[in-house]
Amino acid sequence: MKKISVGILGATGMVGQKYIQLLENHPWFEVVHAAASPQSAGKKYKDVLKNGWIVGGNVPAHVAQLTVEDVGDVSKAAKKCAFVFSAFEMPEKDLIRKYENEYAAAGMPVFSNASAHRGTENVPILIAEINPHHLEIIPAQQKAYGWKKGFVVVKPNCSLQSYLTPIYALIAAGHKVEKLIITSMQAVSGAGYPGVASWDVIDNVVPFISGEEEKTEQEPLKILGEAKEGKFVPFKGLTISAHCNRVPVSDGHLACVNILFGKKKPAREKVLDIWKKFRGEPQKLKLPFAPEQPIIYREEPNRPQPKTDRDADKGMAVTVGRLRLDSVFDFKFVALSHNTIRGAAGGGILNAELALKKGYVEP
Amino acid sequence: MKKISVGILGATGMVGQKYIQLLENHPWFEVVHAAASPQSAGKKYKDVLKNGWIVGGNVPAHVAQLTVEDVGDVSKAAKKCAFVFSAFEMPEKDLIRKYENEYAAAGMPVFSNASAHRGTENVPILIAEINPHHLEIIPAQQKAYGWKKGFVVVKPNCSLQSYLTPIYALIAAGHKVEKLIITSMQAVSGAGYPGVASWDVIDNVVPFISGEEEKTEQEPLKILGEAKEGKFVPFKGLTISAHCNRVPVSDGHLACVNILFGKKKPAREKVLDIWKKFRGEPQKLKLPFAPEQPIIYREEPNRPQPKTDRDADKGMAVTVGRLRLDSVFDFKFVALSHNTIRGAAGGGILNAELALKKGYVEP
Amino acid sequence: MKKISVGILGATGMVGQKYIQLLENHPWFEVVHAAASPQSAGKKYKDVLKNGWIVGGNVPAHVAQLTVEDVGDVSKAAKKCAFVFSAFEMPEKDLIRKYENEYAAAGMPVFSNASAHRGTENVPILIAEINPHHLEIIPAQQKAYGWKKGFVVVKPNCSLQSYLTPIYALIAAGHKVEKLIITSMQAVSGAGYPGVASWDVIDNVVPFISGEEEKTEQEPLKILGEAKEGKFVPFKGLTISAHCNRVPVSDGHLACVNILFGKKKPAREKVLDIWKKFRGEPQKLKLPFAPEQPIIYREEPNRPQPKTDRDADKGMAVTVGRLRLDSVFDFKFVALSHNTIRGAAGGGILNAELALKKGYVEP
Amino acid sequence: MKKISVGILGATGMVGQKYIQLLENHPWFEVVHAAASPQSAGKKYKDVLKNGWIVGGNVPAHVAQLTVEDVGDVSKAAKKCAFVFSAFEMPEKDLIRKYENEYAAAGMPVFSNASAHRGTENVPILIAEINPHHLEIIPAQQKAYGWKKGFVVVKPNCSLQSYLTPIYALIAAGHKVEKLIITSMQAVSGAGYPGVASWDVIDNVVPFISGEEEKTEQEPLKILGEAKEGKFVPFKGLTISAHCNRVPVSDGHLACVNILFGKKKPAREKVLDIWKKFRGEPQKLKLPFAPEQPIIYREEPNRPQPKTDRDADKGMAVTVGRLRLDSVFDFKFVALSHNTIRGAAGGGILNAELALKKGYVEP
Repeated sequence: MKKISVGILGATGMVGQKYIQLLENHPWFEVVHAAASPQSAGKKYKDVLKNGWIVGGNVPAHVAQLTVEDVGDVSKAAKKCAFVFSAFEMPEKDLIRKYENEYAAAGMPVFSNASAHRGTENVPILIAEINPHHLEIIPAQQKAYGWKKGFVVVKPNCSLQSYLTPIYALIAAGHKVEKLIITSMQAVSGAGYPGVASWDVIDNVVPFISGEEEKTEQEPLKILGEAKEGKFVPFKGLTISAHCNRVPVSDGHLACVNILFGKKKPAREKVLDIWKKFRGEPQKLKLPFAPEQPIIYREEPNRPQPKTDRDADKGMAVTVGRLRLDSVFDFKFVALSHNTIRGAAGGGILNAELALKKGYVEP
Repeated sequence: MKKISVGILGATGMVGQKYIQLLENHPWFEVVHAAASPQSAGKKYKDVLKNGWIVGGNVPAHVAQLTVEDVGDVSKAAKKCAFVFSAFEMPEKDLIRKYENEYAAAGMPVFSNASAHRGTENVPILIAEINPHHLEIIPAQQKAYGWKKGFVVVKPNCSLQSYLTPIYALIAAGHKVEKLIITSMQAVSGAGYPGVASWDVIDNVVPFISGEEEKTEQEPLKILGEAKEGKFVPFKGLTISAHCNRVPVSDGHLACVNILFGKKKPAREKVLDIWKKFRGEPQKLKLPFAPEQPIIYREEPNRPQPKTDRDADKGMAVTVGRLRLDSVFDFKFVALSHNTIRGAAGGGILNAELALKKGYVEP
Repeated sequence: MKKISVGILGATGMVGQKYIQLLENHPWFEVVHAAASPQSAGKKYKDVLKNGWIVGGNVPAHVAQLTVEDVGDVSKAAKKCAFVFSAFEMPEKDLIRKYENEYAAAGMPVFSNASAHRGTENVPILIAEINPHHLEIIPAQQKAYGWKKGFVVVKPNCSLQSYLTPIYALIAAGHKVEKLIITSMQAVSGAGYPGVASWDVIDNVVPFISGEEEKTEQEPLKILGEAKEGKFVPFKGLTISAHCNRVPVSDGHLACVNILFGKKKPAREKVLDIWKKFRGEPQKLKLPFAPEQPIIYREEPNRPQPKTDRDADKGMAVTVGRLRLDSVFDFKFVALSHNTIRGAAGGGILNAELALKKGYVEP
Repeated sequence: MKKISVGILGATGMVGQKYIQLLENHPWFEVVHAAASPQSAGKKYKDVLKNGWIVGGNVPAHVAQLTVEDVGDVSKAAKKCAFVFSAFEMPEKDLIRKYENEYAAAGMPVFSNASAHRGTENVPILIAEINPHHLEIIPAQQKAYGWKKGFVVVKPNCSLQSYLTPIYALIAAGHKVEKLIITSMQAVSGAGYPGVASWDVIDNVVPFISGEEEKTEQEPLKILGEAKEGKFVPFKGLTISAHCNRVPVSDGHLACVNILFGKKKPAREKVLDIWKKFRGEPQKLKLPFAPEQPIIYREEPNRPQPKTDRDADKGMAVTVGRLRLDSVFDFKFVALSHNTIRGAAGGGILNAELALKKGYVEP
């Protein structure tokens, strides 16, 4: 089978590199187009990495030799790519939205890692195990923008990907969840590169990440919500409160969670059973990047930990542990996911796999 | 004024060293007695530090030359010391209680850092700004044990010293606090030395500290409780839920706190005002180790942080920040204290100063 | 092909766990015997890991269920194992030698990670790419001890495995190396578990590792030496001076090296060429654990780094960089190897593969 | 005594903040002028710290309220300041030289932390204990530039301040030092703020700092050199080779040093004695920032360490340890200094104190 040609927007940043790394030897996709700022255009990919290849191992050989294209040259991408991954790390959200829209307008589905479009009413924030049906908004989105084949799908903020799947599994099993109090301890790679200054995290914790708590509290409600008349309406009945901290960890976001059920809480064993058996659409469709078991529960008293558990199932599984009764709410537990794999590039790839399998992307 | 002679039990451990360091140049107290295990007895203090002097700077010269005594030789201590600080770090709680009782029985007040006696019904867990009146149980304690001049007073677990004073200040101002959900991020020095293996915390967080959550949830209730018929009765009406994590930080315990008031919550400005103006008995008595302002509020969005704030007012103040409205409870905030100063040796010294000033210790 | 049954002595420690992890799915060997202290004997392997499985991932399923045997029960091992890996981490070297000798006496080749036998005159310190011919001493060793099929082979200290192969490659190419000055920056896993206290390395470097500099200076001379009349005679003509430092890194020992050649130094390009083309016996024999290219040179100005390069070729390659002219000696460069893979368990496995292929081990 | 008014150029950066912090309560100097980029001009100092006050504690109250001035507005500084400290952190060296020259031309002595003027033939690189007489070049410098009262004096790179004073002490005592091989392990604060990305140093060492090895090898020769006809001629007869590494340490540069004497090496006890007794001009003049004992030798086998020794004598002393015989050169030892105090702001202040006391600065 011939592989599908894909492009990476913002290909030289940390997330862009992670996409390129994870897509090496992907069974369906092949990176044929690396787009970056005009200054990099025209040079070989391997020669424009001003901070080097920072994600480990080596630049895949065929990408190293790619000529970097100007991210503004959309038509060039359109000729080569069936779709693109947007890995922009620049702070200007308006500009990101503008670019993503231009690529969609040019007929390319855009699977985005950026936060720019997360608030857009007809753009789904997709976690493939949770809300795969949100892809069904695509025709309405295309109609609203006047796009033919292109569309924009985003993935959520990395901070919530540790705990939202376990919570969703409980909701899907019929248990109403009413309140969540969450404290995250987030890895520095979540801030991109160069991101957090080493001076700030050596022997330290920073109890603040700009904008992160708002995203952690609000994005889940859109993900759990439903589309009505071509617009997503946030889920009601769940309230989330978040503290977000930056800790001296390279990869892996950890969350301490307190959960209050709406009515009768399920038994502890029931919760464990729900998590163990939970499977989503990616598992049913056997998508290449789907973790076999999306939620792994560790019985050890001191797990999950970022160093030991972030790479579970190639970094795509969520690891949960320490489920115990809570004196204030019903239960408390700890959850972890790899922020640059499950929470960024890997999650984006899984979204693209799902959209392809569901027929939204033309190969 | 002649200084009061004091002894340190467990003088070679990390907390013992911290006591010796902090007591150098103390205006009232002088370390004249360093007790450790029998193997160390008879040698000079400076020669028995098998891991070295690990708390920074140099061993105070006069302590370096002290002959270490066997901790079991209580009568030798009784001849020299007006009272002792117990800095035992061994795991056997029964043994610690036995020693502490023997020192009390021999007429010496014991100000303890160990957890062994925290559950004893007539032993106060003392935070000098919060429950100084708990010292009034001493006569009943002495009577129950048949002690004449000696007694045992303990300080609480280091994990709760960041947030309990700010919470108490609100209670003392008349605001009923009903529920607290807390996630701590604790420094490795909280585990003593050698304590946490470096392998476990480099590039990692460990979401578990044995016994710590129980202490964090229960000790505050005793501290906020009242004595009845010579026994402390825990405070009712406050429920605490805690997650305790070990993070790669040397000193300084950070806590993310969600607070639910019992009735009407105070305005944010009112909370800040209460914290700013809060003063306790140590401040009124101008005790040497009393921080001038026990609760310091930082306006910066990203504070407090362990590295920047742990040493506030010589490590004896609690630093608070990020007070904001909470969508699930009423408010959330972040609190920090230095775990080996305020949370251990410094807190113990302040307790001794208070007890002396209140007349419970004979100079 | 039926796999060869092997045992692990000291199976519950960090190095023992690493052996078990690396041997999972080994094409030739299968762990059938896990030996530890008498307290662990009789229980399942998974149940005796008092600090947990600390090397990442999960305990291989078949080992998890193995009944741990008393390390003193040599005959039980002899019935099951073709040979054993010695991963003892206890400090008593005499005891380790005693055990290793007993296993050898019982007919089992012993591939040891411990330092106990490194000074024994007829025990080879083996780096499979450098001195594979040192295995030829085995008959003399067996004769001296009265052993029939058993023998002892050790691997060198982890600190020298970063730079010794690159140096050897130059010597093997005919360039006399006269002096080396080395400063190592070593990972905490080199001290086993719990090993280095976190208090000592957070925000710190410890410029001392007990015994490490002596090993770093002396072991290479035995490795480069030759056997005469059944005893190894150290290499003359090379002098090494080492500083060994402990740094806050989990895995990967880095070394800064200054090299003085005996006569005319080779050109820089010549050195790079020698390194690039260097292949040893493991490569020629295509041993399963042999890195394809034993010495990888990175052109980037800031490489090798522990985090980015320790896993090169599954942790078995040495990565070198920054070869530049030296104003005091001839050249300086930086070298790195993974201390618990190449420098410990992986190196031990490669030694066993070599010995098997060379006919010293009976399957 | 009325304090002397001084200005800080680049007052908002990390080194600028450190100057302000260290000058609080200085007995002779008072910061009255804080200059930064035009964007910050006109606002209060406390309001232009876009990354906050990152050096610990609080902004000194009187500086917090200073109106920041445009660094290009030299005449405004000239009206207020007797001299200025240059703490520029921008990469454009030409621009820094231009500014420093303008301030000097306007009559203000400039004590610079920047590297821009270190290569200028008539600008002294000053370590107050080593080459105080280099100040004597000032009249020639002023003549060459046509300056009246102003001049430029720089301090050397922070990487060499750990080991150069101990080496100089030996030279001053009559022992010719011929060769030095040095490996530094440098703290992240040496790169300013934000400086090193946390991604690069968590669980890692970076064996490269751009330009650092050249400075480490060459600047000492100028410092040890002599002025001839108004120009410094580098010291001959000493050759230095350096490896410079960045380690995950906040403050404190550590160096492993191998030293070869020119002729007969002194006895180990002699070296220790020379270091112990070494005193320089700052000690003789009892300058406020002079450490009492410039070189502190620690007897413990594992010292100096950054965390335990960087603050020795308020961060102004150099701590040395592990002096031992070297098999390749004569001795090896380890040295440490605080890079942002002794190696930056504190060293600059000491230089200013010396110049004032020597009459080069008009109060």
